[in-house]
Amino acid sequence: MVKITDPTIDEYLMSLSKEDDKQLLEMEEFAREKHFPIVDRLVGRLLFILTKLKNPKLIVELGSGFGYSAYWFAKALSQGKVVLTDYEEKNLQVARKTFKRAGLLDKIELRAGDAREIAKEYSGIDILFIDIEKYQYLEAIKILLPNLNRHALIIADNSLWYGRVLEDTADKETAGIKKFNEFMFANKDFFTTIIPLRDGVLLSYKVT
Amino acid sequence: MVKITDPTIDEYLMSLSKEDDKQLLEMEEFAREKHFPIVDRLVGRLLFILTKLKNPKLIVELGSGFGYSAYWFAKALSQGKVVLTDYEEKNLQVARKTFKRAGLLDKIELRAGDAREIAKEYSGIDILFIDIEKYQYLEAIKILLPNLNRHALIIADNSLWYGRVLEDTADKETAGIKKFNEFMFANKDFFTTIIPLRDGVLLSYKVT
Repeated sequence: MVKITDPTIDEYLMSLSKEDDKQLLEMEEFAREKHFPIVDRLVGRLLFILTKLKNPKLIVELGSGFGYSAYWFAKALSQGKVVLTDYEEKNLQVARKTFKRAGLLDKIELRAGDAREIAKEYSGIDILFIDIEKYQYLEAIKILLPNLNRHALIIADNSLWYGRVLEDTADKETAGIKKFNEFMFANKDFFTTIIPLRDGVLLSYKVT
Repeated sequence: MVKITDPTIDEYLMSLSKEDDKQLLEMEEFAREKHFPIVDRLVGRLLFILTKLKNPKLIVELGSGFGYSAYWFAKALSQGKVVLTDYEEKNLQVARKTFKRAGLLDKIELRAGDAREIAKEYSGIDILFIDIEKYQYLEAIKILLPNLNRHALIIADNSLWYGRVLEDTADKETAGIKKFNEFMFANKDFFTTIIPLRDGVLLSYKVT
């Protein structure tokens, strides 16, 4: 499997990206201990800047885990809220504790269940963050297009899928990511690019 | 020298990032022919999205060359303008022709001379793009801090300097970039991150 970014570059970036937010450090430690996949600090910092620039009222996450990405979104919000979704109620309970300790509970909504079904209840989504099963990305975005606000931003994690997008493989996760990427780049209602940060962060800006 | 991003990943991203803007294609061809350094299409696409999100009134470029990055900024602008600066009048003449053909001449100002001196004439800068001599970055940003608008975005190219930031070298370009990065990350008025795209794109959001 290819290394998307040279590991020494990642080390340099991490050495610059010092963190003193106790909750973030605890979440990163929790992820390491439990081998729980999170977007990591460098992607988190990008989410923070994108949120500051966008100044959204409504962020909906498809697949929140225990709230690491949502925490970066919430920290950047000056108004509005983040809706966290996860199949596992117990992940959201961990999130609730973290956001409570950080005084950010008023910025979030926690919803257990099928992320796509839950997201359909919300309209005017300003930022849609996608981090569910990879074969579900394309179906999810097709279902949720009507729920996006004008000039919405879609952010999808794992859009390079550890470099497997380069392989001629039939596994449904890789095929799903490739089809999703192709769909977004071909869709004229969006301007799309992929940032080769960590596992690839797709950004799609709704031009309509 | 390290490869910041795996070349096969770059190829995949380029294969997705099809372009049909004649002016952009011509500028890319011109850069290849003349061995003129440009930020490249993938960085250009990121600039486009950042500009859409920020919706700036005033973008000032320190070091515009023949206008490749400025073209991406101008395309994304719904209001406001981009100020292009370059020591070489002839580079700006090439830019003028390109923007004229694209019908974007009303979105730009072309200024030949010392980028830092010219930029000082502008206040309320919403996006400051830095791509001058690398040893000048730190001095430039220190001079221009008072000229930034509230919540300005600084974008600096070559912030990983072909991976030389990892080396213990005394050359003034590398030392300049390293000091600039450290200054921006340590400055509490800004939230800073570096995107490992092409040669490193530093993003600094002014939180004040």
